[in-house]
Formats: sequence, C-alpha cells, structure tokens
Amino acid sequence: MRELKDLAGIIGLATWDQETYLPPKAEPARAGQLSTLQGLYHQRLVAPEVGDWLGAWSEKAVSDDERAMARVFARERDRAIRVPADLVRTLAESQGAALTAWRVAREARSFTPFAAPLERLLVLRREQADAIGHGGERYDALLEGYEPGMRTERLMPVLHALRDRLIPLVQALAGWPPGADALAGRRFPAEAQWRFTVELLGRLGFDLEAGRQDRSVHPFTGGTHPTDVRLTTRVVEDNLSAALFGTLHECGHGLYEQGFRESDHRTPLAAAPSMGLHESQSRLWENLVGRSLAFWRAVYPRLQRAFPGELGAVPVEAFHAAINRVARTPVRVEADEVTYNLHIVLRTELELEMLRGNLAVADLPGAWNAMLRELLGIEPPDVVKGVLQDIHWAWGELGYFPTYALGNLYAASLLRAAERALPDLWPAIGSGEVGPLRSWLRTHVHAEGSRLDAEDLVVKVTGSGLTDVDFVAYLRAKYGALSGRNLS
Amino acid sequence: MRELKDLAGIIGLATWDQETYLPPKAEPARAGQLSTLQGLYHQRLVAPEVGDWLGAWSEKAVSDDERAMARVFARERDRAIRVPADLVRTLAESQGAALTAWRVAREARSFTPFAAPLERLLVLRREQADAIGHGGERYDALLEGYEPGMRTERLMPVLHALRDRLIPLVQALAGWPPGADALAGRRFPAEAQWRFTVELLGRLGFDLEAGRQDRSVHPFTGGTHPTDVRLTTRVVEDNLSAALFGTLHECGHGLYEQGFRESDHRTPLAAAPSMGLHESQSRLWENLVGRSLAFWRAVYPRLQRAFPGELGAVPVEAFHAAINRVARTPVRVEADEVTYNLHIVLRTELELEMLRGNLAVADLPGAWNAMLRELLGIEPPDVVKGVLQDIHWAWGELGYFPTYALGNLYAASLLRAAERALPDLWPAIGSGEVGPLRSWLRTHVHAEGSRLDAEDLVVKVTGSGLTDVDFVAYLRAKYGALSGRNLS
Repeated sequence: MRELKDLAGIIGLATWDQETYLPPKAEPARAGQLSTLQGLYHQRLVAPEVGDWLGAWSEKAVSDDERAMARVFARERDRAIRVPADLVRTLAESQGAALTAWRVAREARSFTPFAAPLERLLVLRREQADAIGHGGERYDALLEGYEPGMRTERLMPVLHALRDRLIPLVQALAGWPPGADALAGRRFPAEAQWRFTVELLGRLGFDLEAGRQDRSVHPFTGGTHPTDVRLTTRVVEDNLSAALFGTLHECGHGLYEQGFRESDHRTPLAAAPSMGLHESQSRLWENLVGRSLAFWRAVYPRLQRAFPGELGAVPVEAFHAAINRVARTPVRVEADEVTYNLHIVLRTELELEMLRGNLAVADLPGAWNAMLRELLGIEPPDVVKGVLQDIHWAWGELGYFPTYALGNLYAASLLRAAERALPDLWPAIGSGEVGPLRSWLRTHVHAEGSRLDAEDLVVKVTGSGLTDVDFVAYLRAKYGALSGRNLS
Repeated sequence: MRELKDLAGIIGLATWDQETYLPPKAEPARAGQLSTLQGLYHQRLVAPEVGDWLGAWSEKAVSDDERAMARVFARERDRAIRVPADLVRTLAESQGAALTAWRVAREARSFTPFAAPLERLLVLRREQADAIGHGGERYDALLEGYEPGMRTERLMPVLHALRDRLIPLVQALAGWPPGADALAGRRFPAEAQWRFTVELLGRLGFDLEAGRQDRSVHPFTGGTHPTDVRLTTRVVEDNLSAALFGTLHECGHGLYEQGFRESDHRTPLAAAPSMGLHESQSRLWENLVGRSLAFWRAVYPRLQRAFPGELGAVPVEAFHAAINRVARTPVRVEADEVTYNLHIVLRTELELEMLRGNLAVADLPGAWNAMLRELLGIEPPDVVKGVLQDIHWAWGELGYFPTYALGNLYAASLLRAAERALPDLWPAIGSGEVGPLRSWLRTHVHAEGSRLDAEDLVVKVTGSGLTDVDFVAYLRAKYGALSGRNLS
C-alpha cells in the first residue's frame, strides 16, 4: 500500500510538472514516462501476491481503521482487476482519438467530426461498465469511479428536485442585477494579483511550507503527498476574478489534502472518499465563504491597498455585488452560483440517456439545445459554446459531471452544520478569522479521510444525507438579500 | 530498457524537484518516494526475465548499435546483481549516519566524530568492491561505477605526471596577479544576473524549449529526458562569478544531454559513457571557452549593459584578468584552473591509500595537511576548510573525485582537436559565434552517447587517449600571456 501511495504521489508530481514547468518539446517524452508509471502502478495493484496478502490481512484486521483501509484498497483493486487490459488500452487510444476529433470539431464549429469518436467511447464505456458489474444500470458502474457508494436512483431524484427549485429561482432573478459590473473594464497588474493570492492562501490557513502555488493555464490541485500539496491559479489582467476565485477554489481542495491525519499519510485512508466531497471543500471556500459579504468586509481593505487605483473608489458592497452577478449564460464555467447546477443537470441527464442507449449521439446537439431552453430559456450561439464546450466527454468521462453538483449540495449542508456547531462562525469570518471554520472542517471532514463513503460521512456530520434543501435555502437567503426580491 | 529509462527520468524529476520547488515539510515524504522508485528500478533491472531477454537479444544483436546497447545495459545490470541487497541497504544506512556525523564534526570543527563512520564506510566499500569483482585493486571496482573502463594503474601515472608539471607552474605564478580584483566589492542585482544567465544559455545554444533553468543552493544538471534538461544556478549579489560560471558549467552538461541522437533517446545509449567525459563538457564551456578573452570580447558589452553602474568603467581586459586570478586556497571549490587539479590529486591519493588499507582513518587529517603543504605549500585554517570540506566521503563516494580531473584533461584534449578541425574556431568565438564548436562537439562527442567508453571515444576523436599534455599546454599558453611570465 505504501509503494502504491508513493507511486501515486510521483504520478502526481509528473502530472503537475506537465502543466507547470515542463519544456514544450518534452511533451511526448512525458507522455511516455507517465504511461510507464501508470502501467507499473496497475501491475503492482493487480499482482496476485498483493491479492493474497490483502485477503490474509483483511481477515486479521482488528481495528476499524484497518478494516476501512482494507475495504478502500480492495475496492480500488477489484475495479482495476475487472477491466481487461485490452479494454484499458483500447479506451486510452479511443480517448486520444476523441480528443483530437473534439478539437477538430470545435475548430470547424460543427458537431459532426466528433460524433463517431463519441459513439465509440460510449460503446467502450458500456463494455467497461459491464466488466465492472452493476445491477442493471450501467451508469452506476461509472459513477462509482468518482463517487463510490452513489447510485443513479439516489442521485437523479435529488438533481430533479434541485432543478425544480432552481428554475423558478432563476426566473425570479431575471433582470437582476440592473446596473453595470463594478469590476468590468479595469486592469489589475499581474504581479499584484499574484502577491494577493499568495497572501489569501496564508489567510485561509493553507500551509505554504507543506505546499505551494504556481501558475497554469487551467487551475488545478495536485501534488505528491499531504505535506506537498500543489495548487495552481491563473492570472488575467482584465479579470481579477479568475485569480481570486481560482485561488479560493483550489485552496479549498488544498486544505482538504493537507488535513488528512498524519498516521494515515502512506495509507489508502489519506484520500477524500469521493470527487463530490472534494469539490464540496473547493466550493465552500470559493463561494459560500469567498463570495460572502462578511469575508470581504474583513479582506477587502487589503485588496483595495493592493489595487488602489482600480478599487480605491469601489465600496465593498459594490465589489460584493460584482462578484455575485446572476446572468444566464450558455457556458458552464462562466455560470454563477444560481444557474451553475442547471448546467450539471443538463449534462448528467444527457450522458445518462446516451449511455442507456435512449439518446442517439446524432440527436445530442438537438437534445442539448432543447434542454438548455427548457432549463435556462436560452440558446447557445454555436456548438463551441454549446454541446462541444466541455472536454469531459472527449475524455470519455461519463459520471464525472454530477460530482460538481454533489459538491455544491454537500458544501451547503456542511456549512449549515458548521453554523449550528459554531454560533460565532460568521462574526469570526467578518473579523478576518476563518480558523474556527477551517478547524471544524479539518476535524469533521478532512481528518476522516476515506473511512466512510461521502454520503455516510455527510450523514454523520450533518444528520442528513444528500439533499438540495440547504443549498436552495442558502441561495434564497443570499440572493434575496442581494436583490431585494422575494425568493421564497 | 524503455521502462527503465522512463523510471530513471522520473527519478531525475523527483530529485530535481527536491532541490528546487519541494515544500520544506515534504522532505521526508520525498525521501520515501525516491526510495520506492529506486527500489522499483533495481527490482526491474535485476529481474531474472530481464536477464533471459537480454541474453537472447544479445545473441541476435546484428548492428553495432544493438551490440553497444546490450553491452551498456548488461554492464549496469551485472553490477547491480553482484551487490547483495543487504549490503546496499547497510551502505545506505551507513551513508546516512556518516552524513550526520560529518555535519556534527564540521559544527564541532573536529575530525573525531567523523572518524568511526568513515571507517565503517571504508569497510563496506571494500566489501562492495569485492562483491563487484576486481583484479586485485579494489579501487578499480569503485572507479568503474563513475568511469567505466578506467583503471587505477592507468589513472595514477597520468595524475602524477600532471602533478609534477603543475607544482612548478603554480610556483612560477606565485605573487601573480599583483593588483586588486576588479569585481570585488561590487553588487550585482539578482534579477539582472538571472536575465543575463538565461540570455547566455540561449547564446550558447542550449535549447530552452527542451530544457529550463531554475535556482538552487548547489547548481546541478538534471532532468528527465534529452528534451527535458534542467539546469540550476545560484545568484549571489556580491559575487557575479557564482551565477556566470555556474550557468556556463551546467550549460556544458546540458548541451551534452540535449545532444544525444533522437533515435537513442529511450535506450541506454542516450547517456555519457562516464562522469569524467560529462565533466569535460562542463569544464570546456565554463573554463576553456567561458574564461577566454575571445569569448568575453564578444559578450562583455552585453554584460556591461546589464550592469552599467558596476561594469561600465571596467575594461574587458580587467574583467578577463579578474575571472582568471590564481591564488592558492585550501578550498577546492574556490580553486582556479591552475591549482584545481592538485586538490583532486590530493583526494584521489588519500582515498586510494585508505581503501587499500595503507592509510588509517585516524591518520587522515595529518596526511591531508602534509599533502596540501607538499602540493600547494599552504595549510588549512581548520578541518572545515581542510579534511572535512567535501561532502563526497560523507556519502561514501570513493572514486568520484578523479572524474573532475579527467574532465579537465579530456576538455583540453577535445578542444585541441576541435581547433585542429576548425581553423576559424577562435575568430568565430571572438565574434560571438559558438555554433561551430557546439556542432563539432555534438557530432563527435554528444551524439555518440555511450557507444564507446570515454577514453576510447577520446582516442577516436583526438587521436590519443588520456593525457595531461594538452591541458598543461593550455595553462602555459593562457597564463603565460596573462601574467607575462615565462611558464614553459
């Protein structure tokens, strides 16, 4: 288990490096190195002697922790064993082909070049799901790869309830905000942005001696170990939000990674139980804290000092309104907190129906546009800002999108539980002190590692499982106050 | 072979990262990850099925390249197999203990704490040499690890001839230069130094799209692949030479690494045949080119523009004299081109006699000081600037020091051959054009990879093997001109 954890850490290093410091001509070499490492990881994971050892060890496991470790390790191993090596290879090749086709299609602003490669990936994913095994719903087998323990029949009703509450909320906010964006048209020097984001990391309690921040085109959190957590952010001079909320988002992931128990570090327990729960931590810091008025009341004076010319005359309320504008956009990554999950509902619905065979790939662009109209009342200007906007399907990732919505819902429920446990949570944040919240999350979420499946952990911490109730209540309260409209 | 090359590349990445960007708290985790990777590398290298494959493949090898590949690979593998795993482990532990003791001894300014751990390493290195096998001279087995094909009976007479020519040369230069150092007491802003070193890399033809430069405490060349060569340098504001010659030195190593044939990249042939030959390339660019008047005639105006306040009034001749001062110092890394190899003679002689059992560890400090007096006529102020100055013995590295001298000697002989082949070599350098020299080295040295052992390659290129003649002739000509003294 230690060897695999070390190898996974090194794969993390090689991947981080690929996105940050790798010289351009080394890209093919790095692909080869990563494929060798991943092959070695797989070989060691599925080795028969590892299975013998795991079986013997599981029987002797006496503590809860040992049993949890054996369970998490066996789950990863069983999944790896069930998928034949041939299928893994074919999938990797087809992903490469689909990615190329996706780029060609975007270039041509036409879905057609992408249709056949996507169809091929669907066929292979169905094969993979059957190899892994499921109780009749193939999507479950894929979902399990990102969100262990989650099932389609549990997920979809929650997403539908969420959808049914969000549509009227979006409608009630139509036309708001009326004024101009206080941040638009300003230029924020890159160096000052960078310094401010690093200061922000320190303020939030990210340990810069056990991690670092670098620049990359697409922000992400990687690294090799809980003492070596690597965040990236991007700095765009005419868009201050990119760096601010990029850093806040990745910092949430980073605090999770730094928060595992030291005694778990070289075991399978030093991991989040799911992508959704990981995302809950990034969303919590990015949105629930990072777009709150209380947080910026404490931090905004520093931001003004960093950009005196640009922000000196902008009051904190105007800044807060600017970072919380609601606008219906066809593009998911540009969406605000209110509309964002509708983009996820759309994708989850469509990929589920495609995998089930109820929606033909040829009909996908039409279905996409129809559902966007139904959910948001808008149409994409073209396929690049429509059905071809995300890279996920080109990677053959099916079952990944819902983890974004799960993250938002879990974040709201966890914050609600923290508010109940810490009555002074918001006054503390308002005076610049996020320590109590971070400590509470560390104790109740991060330090648990993967001892429990995500929803079981959320039940343990909040008293109830996956629900849209806390998230919708949060939106209603926040945007009701901001807009002055009645959103209940 | 590809898998091992990929693993070696990734070990290179993890090591580079350790010295550049690793967060301080991650040091223990990285040590564990590296040990896992090295263990995997060793396991795969010595695996019996690899031996079977290698045997079968060697018999079928038809081309010279295939035979060379099989030979290089088998040599590494045989060496790895011969040393028992227990001894490897004990050596690693004893190296750790010796390193700690070395630090304690330096802190205490006393050799005593280091004596027993060094004795232990000597015992283990003798065991290792016997396990590897030798013809009666254990030092050969260790030397072979850095300088395949080199033998003690070949090396020592050359080092002795070199010594006998250097001692009178140093004496003839006594009291020179008389004036003050034109670079002393000046401050060179770090940012401008950094920019200049990066420009220098481009000028020398180091491909910054297939490599990079970063900062580290001790400059080194690492990386993962010939398309991903990573140099480091250090910038010290009151010592311009540190960055200038650090960069020139590592650039020499880097040009070698970038110069392997593309078709060799994932084979054992994409490697220098020895440490000494690798060092010849760093010394060639650092000293033979990088401390020449011709080179700086072309480049110095740019350096002056980078530091107008500091160098605007310093003529190129004064700068050239400043970077070529000769002074007898007890510290190897501060030594100039004339005295440097005497430091190597001293270390080689002493480690050879210790390994042979002719010199007791307890007598080492006395022997060190006596030999320093004999070679340079000086004494170290204390053990920190004396017998404890280098980390090599604390690592248990015996046989490594001579590769520095081999590098200097090979560099001079190779440059001599280049001068014969390219009559316009120096005029070109004088007009800022190092391309002809670089191309010649690429063709005749770099692209050969490890097809031939170092000395065989040097014979092929220069017509004669290891010799001090070219190096001593170079010193006499250069310092004769600089000092105006008769050095023949």
